[in-house]
Amino acid sequence: MQRRSLEGSLCPIARSLERVGEWWSMMILRDAFHGLTRFDQFQRSLEIAPNMLTRRLNGLVEAGLLERRRYSARPPRDDYVLTARGRDFWPVMVAMASWGNRHLAHEGIASQVVDAVTGAVAEPVMVDATTGRRLDETGYVFAAGPAADDAVRRRMAFARRQRGPLQREDSLG
Amino acid sequence: MQRRSLEGSLCPIARSLERVGEWWSMMILRDAFHGLTRFDQFQRSLEIAPNMLTRRLNGLVEAGLLERRRYSARPPRDDYVLTARGRDFWPVMVAMASWGNRHLAHEGIASQVVDAVTGAVAEPVMVDATTGRRLDETGYVFAAGPAADDAVRRRMAFARRQRGPLQREDSLG
Repeated sequence: MQRRSLEGSLCPIARSLERVGEWWSMMILRDAFHGLTRFDQFQRSLEIAPNMLTRRLNGLVEAGLLERRRYSARPPRDDYVLTARGRDFWPVMVAMASWGNRHLAHEGIASQVVDAVTGAVAEPVMVDATTGRRLDETGYVFAAGPAADDAVRRRMAFARRQRGPLQREDSLG
Repeated sequence: MQRRSLEGSLCPIARSLERVGEWWSMMILRDAFHGLTRFDQFQRSLEIAPNMLTRRLNGLVEAGLLERRRYSARPPRDDYVLTARGRDFWPVMVAMASWGNRHLAHEGIASQVVDAVTGAVAEPVMVDATTGRRLDETGYVFAAGPAADDAVRRRMAFARRQRGPLQREDSLG
């Protein structure tokens, strides 16, 4: 590891990355959302070295995103199945796929989110569930929560100074 | 690098990870969204080795998420500023922070998304902009798009078989 551990960090992004921030881990989660469950399925899909795949699967199990389900006693074989915590990672996958489709799909869209029943193509956007307003980076910011420590507060205070006084555009109209 | 390059992959998640999938890159983007722009600011915030930071910043500039703006000619010094493509990565950050807050914030919420003007805490959710429906992993799936190749089609066909026949719950109601 070339980075210090951020176990002590309270930042929810740092913590999430600490658990799933390895490139391989996210690709395994992608495949799990596609229904892959078995070691050899992940291996074929990702062309990943077995020891690396074992390490990543163990990491995702320890982090509570996948769970093992034994499907063969002899030889011992497990399915790796998304837990509730793992399934809840879906919006991150969708957000990443949307960004990739908007900015990196030079040949056109190869994979997209659709309604599971009708097949209608979805247009994924992040909104504030309380107001329904589009959650874009001009109208919303990260701010310290009740459990923030000094490090988080300093970062937020810096960000506030950098932004300067903000005024929502529509508040003028 | 312990992984094969996925430059040839059409999957939008693989491509996104190819550009920003390094743990450090995402932490730099987080700090950029907090208003950090200078090398020494990132270094202090992330406690990252200078050569590693240089490499990551260069990577994000090459990938088009950050751009350099010279603020001092002698010595030559650059600000690193989010481009439109970089700012568009915001929903991924928010999705990751939300997941972290739901599943890893054992001490309580330290950092959260709020309305930039009122400070009201937002509840970030992913919806389908066309219908307004919550974009969860039971009602929506990834499917092949117009530019899909055989590899993508095979993966999607496998996922379809794994899911079996689907029926939306509310279609029974």
